[in-house]
Amino acid sequence: MSSTNTQVRLAARPTGLPDESNWSIVEEPVPVPDDGELLVRISHVSLDPAMRGWMNAGASYIEPVAIGEVMRAGAVGEVVGSRHPAFAVGDYVNGAFGVQEYALSDGTGVSKVDPTLAPLPTYLGALGMTGMTAYFALLDVGRPKEGDTVVVSGAAGAVGSVAGQIARIKGCRVIGIAGGASKCAWITDELGFDAAIDYKREDVAAALREHAPQGIDVYFDNVGGDILDAALTRLARSARIVICGAISQYNATGPVKGPSNYLALLVARASMTGMVIFDYLQRFPEAARELAGWLADGSLISREEVVGGGVRAFPQVLLRLFAGENTGKLVLAVGDGEG
Amino acid sequence: MSSTNTQVRLAARPTGLPDESNWSIVEEPVPVPDDGELLVRISHVSLDPAMRGWMNAGASYIEPVAIGEVMRAGAVGEVVGSRHPAFAVGDYVNGAFGVQEYALSDGTGVSKVDPTLAPLPTYLGALGMTGMTAYFALLDVGRPKEGDTVVVSGAAGAVGSVAGQIARIKGCRVIGIAGGASKCAWITDELGFDAAIDYKREDVAAALREHAPQGIDVYFDNVGGDILDAALTRLARSARIVICGAISQYNATGPVKGPSNYLALLVARASMTGMVIFDYLQRFPEAARELAGWLADGSLISREEVVGGGVRAFPQVLLRLFAGENTGKLVLAVGDGEG
Repeated sequence: MSSTNTQVRLAARPTGLPDESNWSIVEEPVPVPDDGELLVRISHVSLDPAMRGWMNAGASYIEPVAIGEVMRAGAVGEVVGSRHPAFAVGDYVNGAFGVQEYALSDGTGVSKVDPTLAPLPTYLGALGMTGMTAYFALLDVGRPKEGDTVVVSGAAGAVGSVAGQIARIKGCRVIGIAGGASKCAWITDELGFDAAIDYKREDVAAALREHAPQGIDVYFDNVGGDILDAALTRLARSARIVICGAISQYNATGPVKGPSNYLALLVARASMTGMVIFDYLQRFPEAARELAGWLADGSLISREEVVGGGVRAFPQVLLRLFAGENTGKLVLAVGDGEG
Repeated sequence: MSSTNTQVRLAARPTGLPDESNWSIVEEPVPVPDDGELLVRISHVSLDPAMRGWMNAGASYIEPVAIGEVMRAGAVGEVVGSRHPAFAVGDYVNGAFGVQEYALSDGTGVSKVDPTLAPLPTYLGALGMTGMTAYFALLDVGRPKEGDTVVVSGAAGAVGSVAGQIARIKGCRVIGIAGGASKCAWITDELGFDAAIDYKREDVAAALREHAPQGIDVYFDNVGGDILDAALTRLARSARIVICGAISQYNATGPVKGPSNYLALLVARASMTGMVIFDYLQRFPEAARELAGWLADGSLISREEVVGGGVRAFPQVLLRLFAGENTGKLVLAVGDGEG
């Protein structure tokens, strides 16, 4: 076990895309757990588009990361020290451990995971916050019915790829919007989406007219911007739009592009609803059971793109999300051999 | 009874604000009812912001008015000829009779009204489509609870003034946004709104911060544009935004201004939902009973601004809506002495 804990701390708030100047890499002694605490050696850190929002000043659905604070991140790892009654050395755990090699925790929000049931990165993907978000945003907010046409943007991303598969499992016709031929091939050929639209090459509104001739019943939006506007032109009566994210707008330096076609909500008697996964904590076990069942029987595929380089690579790896370079869940490998 | 029927027909589709070139005034012989038809001598024509949308080409929640067709409008009048079993000469009726002096009808969508219970223009206001829209948009879509903070834009307009009063009757704290001191005084002093914001003189976002310190639970939007964006900054958790109209955008010659702050829906777990009153036809009797009760006991005030000039004045009177010149329901008087 290393005696130093390398951490990525927020050094300055970004304007637009974050760069190296927004981060400081700090080495600290590995902390020692006190009564009621556990020490986690982190193996994998989750990368999420929402991180960009946490870097901004100002209240949102969660406090911003303070300047000088370790960057907030979901992570998994192994308990390597414990004076906490619920956790023992050798347990594997999932929690908001931050972008660092070792985390001290009082156990709040920490759950045990079983690495024999699924690889650890999957607990950041389909079996983690990502899968929970897809599950509740689609089923609770989108409320798809069998036979509905469901359109998912960011469909090859972490949340979108799971949301689209759940819609397929629930008997919906699923159309994914993604950037590039290989992502489009992945969601149709491997994940079983009924159709894919490559927004980099196709006119999205025209493609939606072709693939959703009866209109869109549920639009699961991860991207915002022009794609949201295109989806608005094709709503079926009483359509539900789930606002799960807006990655196209997170690095905007001017005002966010509002959906110019929002009056389609009136024409279609449709709704556009935001969701935050933290509201569903009490119901995570129910979702985890169902997601694990689908993973086990092969109806759900979780893909994690695990990138090496340790925590020092975090600033560069984060940018992959905003460049649309990842397919599935983007995960940073930390720890032995990396740290 | 006159032998000519003066009509206002759509001559050309407008770009931006309609002008005289968009209309043709036509005189036709007064028609004679055939079997199953009734003839109505129109006394009052309803003016509605939605008319601007009906003048555009392209499908919406209702077919556009065709070029050469009599302009669609709600109206009230007296039956002056009938070969329809349900209507007798001397009945007063409400229907989509159009901007003309006489209308022939097969009775579809026509209902009798009682001029001894309320003046005829009130059947275009609080007891008509206007009141129905306010009632169902607020109660069914907005779902206010007692003690909620309800904000209404276009609050001195036909729908907004009724919606705000219903919210007050239901025990909500009601804040109206209107243009000008006299409208603001009317909604607070006469209609019992708790506060008014004059968007022509005040910073709406700052005023909402002052008047809705706990945030907005229901935002009833008739205007869109910057005021919608300001309301989005002040949403309470699980707020409901009702998209009833967007008068600020109806004459836009460029793209509609989408709500730049729509990601507030995510932060607040809020929804934005469109409505069209035609979906509630089956439930009009229930709403009419309740609205009539409130009118009778004085808890609801219906104000109609009745403008003379006959149907020929329609093109000019319509523009008052978009200039924000009316307070309450704008109605055009037709018929004897005017036609």
